[in-house]
Amino acid sequence: MRQILLSHGGGGKETQKLIKDLFFKYFSNPILEKMEDSAVLEINSKIAFTTDSFTVYPIFFKGGDIGKLAIAGTVNDLTVMGAKPLYLSCSFIIEEGFPIEYLEKILTSMSKEMEKSQVKIVTGDTKIVPKGFADGIFINTTGIGKVIYEGISAQNLEEGDCIVISGTVGDHGACIMAQREGMEMDSNIESDCESLWDMVEKVINSGVKIKAMRDPTRGGLSAVLNEWALSSNVEIEVEEDKIPVKPEVQGLCELLGFEPYTLANEGKIVFCVDKKDVEKLLTVLKNHQKGKDATFIGKVISKGKPVVILKSPYGTRRVMEFPSGELLPRIC
Amino acid sequence: MRQILLSHGGGGKETQKLIKDLFFKYFSNPILEKMEDSAVLEINSKIAFTTDSFTVYPIFFKGGDIGKLAIAGTVNDLTVMGAKPLYLSCSFIIEEGFPIEYLEKILTSMSKEMEKSQVKIVTGDTKIVPKGFADGIFINTTGIGKVIYEGISAQNLEEGDCIVISGTVGDHGACIMAQREGMEMDSNIESDCESLWDMVEKVINSGVKIKAMRDPTRGGLSAVLNEWALSSNVEIEVEEDKIPVKPEVQGLCELLGFEPYTLANEGKIVFCVDKKDVEKLLTVLKNHQKGKDATFIGKVISKGKPVVILKSPYGTRRVMEFPSGELLPRIC
Repeated sequence: MRQILLSHGGGGKETQKLIKDLFFKYFSNPILEKMEDSAVLEINSKIAFTTDSFTVYPIFFKGGDIGKLAIAGTVNDLTVMGAKPLYLSCSFIIEEGFPIEYLEKILTSMSKEMEKSQVKIVTGDTKIVPKGFADGIFINTTGIGKVIYEGISAQNLEEGDCIVISGTVGDHGACIMAQREGMEMDSNIESDCESLWDMVEKVINSGVKIKAMRDPTRGGLSAVLNEWALSSNVEIEVEEDKIPVKPEVQGLCELLGFEPYTLANEGKIVFCVDKKDVEKLLTVLKNHQKGKDATFIGKVISKGKPVVILKSPYGTRRVMEFPSGELLPRIC
Repeated sequence: MRQILLSHGGGGKETQKLIKDLFFKYFSNPILEKMEDSAVLEINSKIAFTTDSFTVYPIFFKGGDIGKLAIAGTVNDLTVMGAKPLYLSCSFIIEEGFPIEYLEKILTSMSKEMEKSQVKIVTGDTKIVPKGFADGIFINTTGIGKVIYEGISAQNLEEGDCIVISGTVGDHGACIMAQREGMEMDSNIESDCESLWDMVEKVINSGVKIKAMRDPTRGGLSAVLNEWALSSNVEIEVEEDKIPVKPEVQGLCELLGFEPYTLANEGKIVFCVDKKDVEKLLTVLKNHQKGKDATFIGKVISKGKPVVILKSPYGTRRVMEFPSGELLPRIC
């Protein structure tokens, strides 16, 4: 099996060959092919700018791989700022000996995922480290988007506002856990890893006023709601039985002692909107394949005390804590 | 000694604390402190966009460290496209157990280096991987600059054009080699790691027409000249005795069997200008601290054959090959 060699990262002939034979095959576009030290772009608008490094293990998982995740993750971070994703940079850190076949599989899924939101990789970098100094492959993607919807902020939450989640929670985290525990064969838990720009664009075009919007990745739904409660200094109350969770994810969580709302999602969005907009938002989301399980899960109930409350169907109330401690490492 | 823990990367309380207590202390600015999923920027101009991941070993070296390098490297990649560096993203991959004291030392030098070109980190990411899955710390910086000088391209070289290097070659590569070989105590070889925007801005303002401009990092001077020869389909002739090399770098190269012009530089720029501009370019460079050793080293002598020739003082001519094979890994 052909492997990545140290010489592929030396900046000489072999690096040029790797770029031209492999990266250009999957990422081809006129800006990238100029091979200058920077890409030159013309956007003429406010831009959103975001970065993420991906170190997920295993690199191939049900529903995706590190490549799909590296595109979807950064596309979604632009998306939740109301920005249409346009350009990405991509930087690889690869361990010597990494199979080129795996790299091609990853590049293929990056290329497919980019097509969904018409985003392009316009500049890149590759570093090869000797065997034992990294684990297979790490990918950084940094994105630029054109801001088409302004005013989204974690500080916007007010009493009476409604919280909506675009689908089931915990799928990505549960999928990675199941594979690490060697349970992937018995389980049909799939990562929800997915670019969401097309869905959010429909919400923006519908005229719904989005007050806050986040993709609940590391730390899950719980981290997003706690950050919002803190930033806006409000109390949020979530109805536990309304949070959509797939039965198999719930089962795994019970087995391993996790709460599904602390697990990472990679294809979901949490919205905060005024109560007059909540029906419209749900209709738009449910009409989209990626939002078919969208659910209204709770409200902002008062100002002055930053806390998130989980209300059981029996009326008991407990704090939904900000996640802490050793959550699952290398989830994304 | 306090250490980085897996929980610092979980996306929960500890991650928030790391960001607020440490990263904000060194990188503080209003855009970053919004802590949204993307930074929102207003530039209103053509922008340059570039990325680099830094995996250098050792992380602390004479003349700099991985942090200084991560800022200077990306600032220089914007600079050589005629773009004033404005904003950076910064993403860390840190191995569990990494000393927080080292991280603070790195953040301090990043902060100092950013001041030199007034560039700001406006968005970031931190991943922690378990012990043994990365080597200490890897840093990705991705930069956005405002293009203020257009038309620079590797395809611009024509017969008669002159090649100028802003200073001695091979310093960074030689410094890393010396430290790896345990020779740092005997040698006074320092990395040239340095942001060069201020020097290049002076060249731009002088009215010199810059045809091509590159920072000769991995693959050194040789990789830049060979890429130019290929892109413009020209023969470049360089006079070997004019290439400025520090005696201690030359000595180390002879000892270890390297050519100084294949070694990485992190604080130098190679220019190609029309011959009528060469005197002015040299004057501007020599008047700047970072360009005091600037030298005219060669010319484009003909069209139609992409090759770089090294001419000795005795008139013998040999090909300056595109570097290949296992060059020094983890040089940047």
